[in-house]
Amino acid sequence: MELSHIYASIEKDLTRIKDELRSVSRVDFPWLSEQLSYVVTGGGKGIRPALTLLSGKFYNYDLTYLLPMAVSVELMHTSTLVHDDAIDKALVRRGQSTINKLWGQDIAILLGDYLFAKAGESVADTRNPRVIKLFSQTLAIISSGEINQFLGAFQLKQTRENYLQRISSKTASLFALATESGAILSQAPETAVEVLRDYGYNLGIAFQIVDDILDFTSDEKTLGKPVGSDLVQGTLTLPAMLLLERYPEDNPVRSIFENRGTQDIARAIEMVRNSSIVEDCYQLATEYCAKACQNFNLLPDNTSRQSLAALADYVTKRKD
Amino acid sequence: MELSHIYASIEKDLTRIKDELRSVSRVDFPWLSEQLSYVVTGGGKGIRPALTLLSGKFYNYDLTYLLPMAVSVELMHTSTLVHDDAIDKALVRRGQSTINKLWGQDIAILLGDYLFAKAGESVADTRNPRVIKLFSQTLAIISSGEINQFLGAFQLKQTRENYLQRISSKTASLFALATESGAILSQAPETAVEVLRDYGYNLGIAFQIVDDILDFTSDEKTLGKPVGSDLVQGTLTLPAMLLLERYPEDNPVRSIFENRGTQDIARAIEMVRNSSIVEDCYQLATEYCAKACQNFNLLPDNTSRQSLAALADYVTKRKD
Repeated sequence: MELSHIYASIEKDLTRIKDELRSVSRVDFPWLSEQLSYVVTGGGKGIRPALTLLSGKFYNYDLTYLLPMAVSVELMHTSTLVHDDAIDKALVRRGQSTINKLWGQDIAILLGDYLFAKAGESVADTRNPRVIKLFSQTLAIISSGEINQFLGAFQLKQTRENYLQRISSKTASLFALATESGAILSQAPETAVEVLRDYGYNLGIAFQIVDDILDFTSDEKTLGKPVGSDLVQGTLTLPAMLLLERYPEDNPVRSIFENRGTQDIARAIEMVRNSSIVEDCYQLATEYCAKACQNFNLLPDNTSRQSLAALADYVTKRKD
Repeated sequence: MELSHIYASIEKDLTRIKDELRSVSRVDFPWLSEQLSYVVTGGGKGIRPALTLLSGKFYNYDLTYLLPMAVSVELMHTSTLVHDDAIDKALVRRGQSTINKLWGQDIAILLGDYLFAKAGESVADTRNPRVIKLFSQTLAIISSGEINQFLGAFQLKQTRENYLQRISSKTASLFALATESGAILSQAPETAVEVLRDYGYNLGIAFQIVDDILDFTSDEKTLGKPVGSDLVQGTLTLPAMLLLERYPEDNPVRSIFENRGTQDIARAIEMVRNSSIVEDCYQLATEYCAKACQNFNLLPDNTSRQSLAALADYVTKRKD
């Protein structure tokens, strides 16, 4: 199913979120509002704000609180991307020049901080201490995860647990915040809050595994950034880890990490594509998607439940 | 009056804040807890958390809420310092190597983000939507102020209004948050909230003017960082602005800004010291301190009011 179909029931509200995101940049920095507006609204799949809205549709769907929450989740996501790109010296994201490429690393630091602040303002508008606390805890998890990823870069000896821990911090935690906050703000009973949080968490793990696969199997035009970026950054993703396990001796990942060179990247991509690694990774992602929905029988059976199930299906089938 | 005397009535509670700040780093990053603990607790005058506590002492002094607020204010301050130092490539702060000097700019970005997050967690513990909103708004003001400062660097044509706007964003806004939140969390009536916010704001302006004077008149040992740093960064502070006005032709500030060289810094410092500029700047700072206390008659007359008045006096007399 296409994303537009999955989002059908919340389409109008997603448009309101986009408008809100666009206005964030317009007020304080009109001179960069076009670019910043692109950063906060453009190209992305809007999966995180959609998760908040869909998770809020089981009980009291009150946009007074759900809209600022969804906006804050997307702003937090964007601000971490801006800082990540600055650290990775990434030049392209979603087919567009990054902030650090356009204006330098210093402005990227400051704009990322500004977007954090705006995310904080927005979550404060929920006036709900529980989701505000969750929001800050999630930011702490994400940033400590980023620190650990940075420190673990170019290290070959990593376990699958290290990998899962890493993607749990950097992706699943925010997905879980998106769904859990939607549930809490719609006054869902605690069981439903838990089911929706677990859904978000497991979906986030699956989403990141697929992201890491696409870094090997996709192409630059579809991805909006060069393939093999993770290898260049020294991030040992699951496909690279499996490649190392299968070819422990003469392995391009080893040479990329040890020599910090890029000449073996094409070979690593080729070897992954020509092995069963891609399939094995998709298998794991599919298992997480199944796990995401395993307690759906505890939720009311409505359109939102179907949309969330369809989203879990979409995550392993997406191409970008 | 010494700071230790001014703080006497809140001494024990300030110790609790220091303990709390120390524990922030200990949990997630034991390997860097010593350094991070130094960053969050060491060397600083602790003026911002003290302002929150003292402002909370007029009505219901409830540490359940005032402590996390004071901690969050200090953490926000620290996180902005970590990012500022990374952007300025500063090597020393409070007599110690900066995070970016020790571990590089990338870790400084990530650690700053982590400290932001911890500040957010702490402010969430106040469970007060009004101060949480103020907290995020203040962070937005500070970061947009930093962006404007960055973009205005090395520009000679700046008005006094530009300068006041800049220090209002970067310093006075956080001082105002510290005092206003203390008032709100102690259930002060709105008049008192306003008096204390205005106190914090004006004290912050005075504090920053004195900071900018000390960058010319102090020495590296006392300051804990090299004198003339503002000129090196291209930040046109009030003393530099007055020097430019008085000697519009052959002026070392002009040559420093135009050539981005450091050879004229000693001459600029010498010229400022040998003029009435220092005195004029102190005069302005003193006016802001007087303004800070001008409505104190609307507050209950207690030890805290005396401490805040003494603090306003201290600000223009401090040497570091």
